[in-house]
Amino acid sequence: MTEQPANTANTMWGGRFAAGPDAIMEAINASIGFDQRLYAQDIRGSRAHAAMLAAQGIISTSDAEAIGKGLLTVLSEIEKGDFAFSTALEDIHMNVESRLKEVIGEPAGRLHTARSRNDQVATDFRLWVRDQCDAAIAGLDALIRAALAQAEAGTDWVMPGFTHLQTAQPVTWGHHMMAYVEMFGRDLSRFQDARRRMNESPLGAAALAGTGFPIDRHATAAALGFDRPMANSLDAVSDRDFALEYLSTAAICAVHLSRLAEELVIWSSAQFRFVTMSDRFSTGSSIMPQKKNPDAAELIRAKIGRILGAAVALFVVMKGLPLAYSKDMQEDKEQVFDASDNLMLALAAMTGMLSDLHANRDRLEAAAGSGFSTATDLADWLVREAGLPFRDAHHVTGALVAMAEKQGSDLPDLTLAQMQSVHPALTDDVYNVLGVHNSVASRTSYGGTAPAQVRAQIARWKEKLA
Amino acid sequence: MTEQPANTANTMWGGRFAAGPDAIMEAINASIGFDQRLYAQDIRGSRAHAAMLAAQGIISTSDAEAIGKGLLTVLSEIEKGDFAFSTALEDIHMNVESRLKEVIGEPAGRLHTARSRNDQVATDFRLWVRDQCDAAIAGLDALIRAALAQAEAGTDWVMPGFTHLQTAQPVTWGHHMMAYVEMFGRDLSRFQDARRRMNESPLGAAALAGTGFPIDRHATAAALGFDRPMANSLDAVSDRDFALEYLSTAAICAVHLSRLAEELVIWSSAQFRFVTMSDRFSTGSSIMPQKKNPDAAELIRAKIGRILGAAVALFVVMKGLPLAYSKDMQEDKEQVFDASDNLMLALAAMTGMLSDLHANRDRLEAAAGSGFSTATDLADWLVREAGLPFRDAHHVTGALVAMAEKQGSDLPDLTLAQMQSVHPALTDDVYNVLGVHNSVASRTSYGGTAPAQVRAQIARWKEKLA
Amino acid sequence: MTEQPANTANTMWGGRFAAGPDAIMEAINASIGFDQRLYAQDIRGSRAHAAMLAAQGIISTSDAEAIGKGLLTVLSEIEKGDFAFSTALEDIHMNVESRLKEVIGEPAGRLHTARSRNDQVATDFRLWVRDQCDAAIAGLDALIRAALAQAEAGTDWVMPGFTHLQTAQPVTWGHHMMAYVEMFGRDLSRFQDARRRMNESPLGAAALAGTGFPIDRHATAAALGFDRPMANSLDAVSDRDFALEYLSTAAICAVHLSRLAEELVIWSSAQFRFVTMSDRFSTGSSIMPQKKNPDAAELIRAKIGRILGAAVALFVVMKGLPLAYSKDMQEDKEQVFDASDNLMLALAAMTGMLSDLHANRDRLEAAAGSGFSTATDLADWLVREAGLPFRDAHHVTGALVAMAEKQGSDLPDLTLAQMQSVHPALTDDVYNVLGVHNSVASRTSYGGTAPAQVRAQIARWKEKLA
Amino acid sequence: MTEQPANTANTMWGGRFAAGPDAIMEAINASIGFDQRLYAQDIRGSRAHAAMLAAQGIISTSDAEAIGKGLLTVLSEIEKGDFAFSTALEDIHMNVESRLKEVIGEPAGRLHTARSRNDQVATDFRLWVRDQCDAAIAGLDALIRAALAQAEAGTDWVMPGFTHLQTAQPVTWGHHMMAYVEMFGRDLSRFQDARRRMNESPLGAAALAGTGFPIDRHATAAALGFDRPMANSLDAVSDRDFALEYLSTAAICAVHLSRLAEELVIWSSAQFRFVTMSDRFSTGSSIMPQKKNPDAAELIRAKIGRILGAAVALFVVMKGLPLAYSKDMQEDKEQVFDASDNLMLALAAMTGMLSDLHANRDRLEAAAGSGFSTATDLADWLVREAGLPFRDAHHVTGALVAMAEKQGSDLPDLTLAQMQSVHPALTDDVYNVLGVHNSVASRTSYGGTAPAQVRAQIARWKEKLA
Repeated sequence: MTEQPANTANTMWGGRFAAGPDAIMEAINASIGFDQRLYAQDIRGSRAHAAMLAAQGIISTSDAEAIGKGLLTVLSEIEKGDFAFSTALEDIHMNVESRLKEVIGEPAGRLHTARSRNDQVATDFRLWVRDQCDAAIAGLDALIRAALAQAEAGTDWVMPGFTHLQTAQPVTWGHHMMAYVEMFGRDLSRFQDARRRMNESPLGAAALAGTGFPIDRHATAAALGFDRPMANSLDAVSDRDFALEYLSTAAICAVHLSRLAEELVIWSSAQFRFVTMSDRFSTGSSIMPQKKNPDAAELIRAKIGRILGAAVALFVVMKGLPLAYSKDMQEDKEQVFDASDNLMLALAAMTGMLSDLHANRDRLEAAAGSGFSTATDLADWLVREAGLPFRDAHHVTGALVAMAEKQGSDLPDLTLAQMQSVHPALTDDVYNVLGVHNSVASRTSYGGTAPAQVRAQIARWKEKLA
Repeated sequence: MTEQPANTANTMWGGRFAAGPDAIMEAINASIGFDQRLYAQDIRGSRAHAAMLAAQGIISTSDAEAIGKGLLTVLSEIEKGDFAFSTALEDIHMNVESRLKEVIGEPAGRLHTARSRNDQVATDFRLWVRDQCDAAIAGLDALIRAALAQAEAGTDWVMPGFTHLQTAQPVTWGHHMMAYVEMFGRDLSRFQDARRRMNESPLGAAALAGTGFPIDRHATAAALGFDRPMANSLDAVSDRDFALEYLSTAAICAVHLSRLAEELVIWSSAQFRFVTMSDRFSTGSSIMPQKKNPDAAELIRAKIGRILGAAVALFVVMKGLPLAYSKDMQEDKEQVFDASDNLMLALAAMTGMLSDLHANRDRLEAAAGSGFSTATDLADWLVREAGLPFRDAHHVTGALVAMAEKQGSDLPDLTLAQMQSVHPALTDDVYNVLGVHNSVASRTSYGGTAPAQVRAQIARWKEKLA
Repeated sequence: MTEQPANTANTMWGGRFAAGPDAIMEAINASIGFDQRLYAQDIRGSRAHAAMLAAQGIISTSDAEAIGKGLLTVLSEIEKGDFAFSTALEDIHMNVESRLKEVIGEPAGRLHTARSRNDQVATDFRLWVRDQCDAAIAGLDALIRAALAQAEAGTDWVMPGFTHLQTAQPVTWGHHMMAYVEMFGRDLSRFQDARRRMNESPLGAAALAGTGFPIDRHATAAALGFDRPMANSLDAVSDRDFALEYLSTAAICAVHLSRLAEELVIWSSAQFRFVTMSDRFSTGSSIMPQKKNPDAAELIRAKIGRILGAAVALFVVMKGLPLAYSKDMQEDKEQVFDASDNLMLALAAMTGMLSDLHANRDRLEAAAGSGFSTATDLADWLVREAGLPFRDAHHVTGALVAMAEKQGSDLPDLTLAQMQSVHPALTDDVYNVLGVHNSVASRTSYGGTAPAQVRAQIARWKEKLA
Repeated sequence: MTEQPANTANTMWGGRFAAGPDAIMEAINASIGFDQRLYAQDIRGSRAHAAMLAAQGIISTSDAEAIGKGLLTVLSEIEKGDFAFSTALEDIHMNVESRLKEVIGEPAGRLHTARSRNDQVATDFRLWVRDQCDAAIAGLDALIRAALAQAEAGTDWVMPGFTHLQTAQPVTWGHHMMAYVEMFGRDLSRFQDARRRMNESPLGAAALAGTGFPIDRHATAAALGFDRPMANSLDAVSDRDFALEYLSTAAICAVHLSRLAEELVIWSSAQFRFVTMSDRFSTGSSIMPQKKNPDAAELIRAKIGRILGAAVALFVVMKGLPLAYSKDMQEDKEQVFDASDNLMLALAAMTGMLSDLHANRDRLEAAAGSGFSTATDLADWLVREAGLPFRDAHHVTGALVAMAEKQGSDLPDLTLAQMQSVHPALTDDVYNVLGVHNSVASRTSYGGTAPAQVRAQIARWKEKLA
């Protein structure tokens, strides 16, 4: 069975419909306005199908050659912008086949043997989404390299580590950048998993039941770079879980991007001034030349909305659809197109922004040292050197911070006498752990903020990416 | 303050930016690709602003006249398709103003007095969304009329009332159609409320703080059909709750549409055959001419996905944005555009489908009578006529249904003797409530399925719509 | 028809089911775990129903009195915690009715006359959601008063007005607070509209078709505080749009809360220090006593996630459900319960936080004056006093800012000679507009940041709330 | 640093807070109401941590032994229901530690050495989500086996294959069931991937920066079954992408479940009667004993709403959070708890329903043969045997269907003469492809509906599961 809407304007199938679909129906029904983006995948799939049909003796070699050549002509017309897409022909599949018939005549009618629009569109779309996985993988690779370069430049620059946007402990710029390398690295691995899982060929599932023609689905799968044919023809034409997985994966990645973007917006404020964005990724104001608005960062921050919205849309569309193909599924493509366009834009803009980003090292270091940020180091010293239980060490530290705060100074400004008045076990050695550079240098646990640890992780990632 | 990105290619503000935004930045930043849809609102707003500036003596009358006329020229160019939109000019506001300068020269530079892009875009977008409320109200009005016409044609046609998609009690076609009239009526009232609430003018809020120019915000509000100016300039440029309310309202409406669409799909199946869709809103298959796929109904069913997705997207974008304008908010428009396009399409298609819909009265009636659908009527008779407590009446009815089921017949097929063997209070009178027509006629409680009740509701709605 | 699952353990209807629902079925099916929250509404609805049945002569007055009194007994047992909810009795309706039977015996069996669980649950839930609208209205009223109090205290305190989190123009603390008053005011009006629209009674719709008993739906509607009975019985038991509207409205409100919460988090950072949160709404750290984490603000910021998630959940559940009742709809309650609990918590916490909030007036004023924040005032002066077109005035201002920036000073530090070297029309008078207090005082357009304007809006709101 | 809210009621850290958090703050802040579900994970993590501290010489062996034993005591108290959870102690971590101190005294204070609540909660939650992946994998395994059993029982039962809920081509029951096996199989592999990716240990990341104590993170990772420690301490305490991945994966699975559930609801209708659900997974009606409502199927269909809502909630919560820990992240757990509870319930109920499901073979076969369902077979015969181009074969078939329809018969009822009047190439052989059994038997392409193909896929899956 081939699902093709009858259309009085469409001489390819004509039919019994007394009334042609009117303007509203055409508007809601036609997909050519967006699915023309699948043209390359459609033609690639058709070429693989025709070659297989000939190899299996289902159509003649000369027909297959005519089809193959004709499709390349159509491809070249589309790529040159010479192709007139027709809404009356509804979708990319009929547009291509119709033009093929004009170009090569009768053999065009044999291309659709042992195939249906249902497996055709499933194949085209899967190829397209697979390409988007590859694009996202490449985009994440570039972004990771940009973050690695920042980490390498500032491996030992100190900055405040925040919790609740309150200064908590000093960390290093390199360490902070490497946190995003880890996140984007997991995003990348998610796209790899999604790609691997979706890399099965629906082609040959026909309308829904398979076909009686002696086709070779393994051959078309191989020709299209799929690992294997899908094992159930109903499933092949009915499911869009690969698109849901792509969208979910993109949304997780967009959450990570939104977090870094938020940090860049906050860090760019006059109050923070932790970073200076390049002119290339800021916009100015006509009358306040000092103003550099972090527009790109804000737009990246917003993209999670759009991408999550696209995911929700397709989840809702697919909810409760009985097998096999239902027309609802035509709504799958625009969501993925929009999500993918915006994810790739956000990845590119973030990579550019990060590459150009200037960290204001002095501001970062000054902020790192304020706010008793090394109080934990003092408490840990008490545990380690004086053998206090952790909870007791915390109480002693709290008292010392209160004393410093009262006199309007910081912890290193307390005299040893003052310190010992709170706890006699304190010695001169404690001052070693109160400086921010000593603090970060001391955090040598695996994955910690010590520059040595950060350097080790940078090296591991460089090897991984090489 | 006017937020305008500096751009070396843009001689309107020039600036200090060494590097022009590169291709990625332009791609992520420019909005002219979509906000050109606001051109009419933008020009309308600018004309009202210029007239007010002159009336207040802020600019000269001749400048205001030149601006007003020049804007009409620009409007006409856009409507004729003669306008070349420029991505370098970023958005619709700069595109219009730049062209205005070419048309009228120096006075164009005075239009932006006491205004900013922030209040300008807020005004344009609010006008646009207000128009979409009006469009939705008109679309729902038409749909309600179509449902009313169906209800009127089949006020007393009986059909099964389902719960859990299982036959429960007979209802009338008119009653079923009127249920949707109520739902769409509430949708309409929601759009009215949203319109009323959003109908306040942001114009004159300037960048965020208001202005020192002696502007008359009440005058521009009135000129643009707003009920009043917004009372806080920060709020005026910062919030998009009117768009969130529009999207939520559209999503609720789309849920209602999805339910009717689902019913049409199920009712069109070979197993139900409750309705026949017109050719205009179905598609056929080239080789199975009897096949009429309910494509329009399926696409309408799917639209809730897209519209809810758009709502989610904007909710996420707006989450946690500090005041006032942030660039994230540029993501507001495409979501509303897409949701509105699709809602209007779905409303139009559903109106068309419903207008053309043929209910298969015989199939409906046959289905209504099967499955012991009047068992409740029997139980109610026992309560009403024989004084049994409700729960006891149910037990008696259950026994009678079991008896009928055992002999493979329906309730009216039981003899009086059989009935009385279960409960002696049963009399000949009980047969009167066992027919489906009697059943529906008896349900005369307010809002019930009795044709008289349905007719009363139809009359009420006709008066309401008149 | 009454939709009641047969259950071998349930002697109220017994039935033909050979196998009792097993543990999984009970776990997925029973709702008593959550719908017990509807007990007061359920009993209130049943009392109104029984009274009406007696008034209409459908049951005897003595039965009605027994039922009414018995229900009060049950109510009191539940409120005292003496009621043993039973999962075998599935839901709140059967739990109450079953206990009623124990308390009053046979008349309990007459309560369900002319009613079904379908209209019963629709009535209970609608009453509950209506109560939540009232609660949200009260909560928003309190929050608005807290914001008004802040506005009144700091009507003329200056602070930076941000766009893109970059300093743009000075505004006043009062003006900023009043922006939220407007937002929360619209939220309040949305809950009012939702309440008004949902305030119709489903009671008497019975299972789906109405009833043949001579009930008086207007009487029960009035007794329950509804404006009128719903006009279509199918609609009455099938739709949950009132819950969707409640959830959407709550989500919009939660977006507003998230924005204020984000500001509070940022303003509490060491880098901003614009505000000091009270100890009551912060948490500390055991070893860093100076640290005050804005936990409440962060949790409020997060609530939009949960509330939007609940809205999405119910939208998805309702998608594509055929009429009338389907069991899917049992998923409506927990979403509304959770959203409402969290909205009320967030409103209360924000009200408390705002009431206790200390604005650091000096920090605000210092930040307001930095960053050339009055450059727009200068440009506006050039337009107003020197007659320059707006765009030209911006170029002149840009040059002056560049000059000041170059010498490391601010605009008021430029000498008149320096100024006149850029444009000769500048006079001593210009210095009057360069101070932040003059700047804000000058923005007297309706809704602008001038203290006089802010005071007028505070007065308007006080009158409105009185 | 250890993030612990000061609380006057909490003697473990006391502090400087003048005012204790009031009731609202306690209500919004405390997590013990839900995070007590992490008790086993919390104790397991603490035991591993204490053992490692001793092995590294950071605490004494005797202290570690006391801690380890004490924690087992606490565990046993919780499991026996003897543990009194305290809201004043806020969360599961403090509840456990506080009780440990009561049980073992001073050594309890050493447990928190080189650890923070930030890495502790990240570890606990990750262990919990990992367990849920395992549970989902087991649940899917059982469901796949149930579907396989159905497929095996009805490998060659014919039924209509639908597109648009219109009969398209005959397929087999086995083939239809195997489509779901494929879907659930991919769901299972997604949970496996998610589990593998999340299986890294955050323990030892401390508050955010790592620690200076000579801890062995590889040792605790191994003790807890993690593959390795996470490589960046900031990332370890800040990200929840593993929960987002779990929720997205669960949502995709829930979409698949909703589709099968929808089919079961439709198939159970009086109009379809394709299947009979067991009493165990249906509910009845007290007065219509024949009625079997597919409640479990409807509830399963609804679960995608709730699970997607949970996913949306956490995506929104995580949007735009700066590093490292923010309190917003406390909202992560309830969403995952609810989604996981409901996913597992849905998987169990679907497995039970499918195991008990009775397919009405005669109804399926009758429906399969109606509606010219083998028209495609005829067209394919014309291509294969008579060499017609596909598009021409379709036109011929269309004419034959029209002829049959006109005379009110089906395709096999046409005489050979009638057939040849449409196209002379038709021979007696064509009747062989017009029967539904021949039709399905002919679709032998890989993954097609032919019983032989279905059998091969069943065999492949059995081997895979073995």
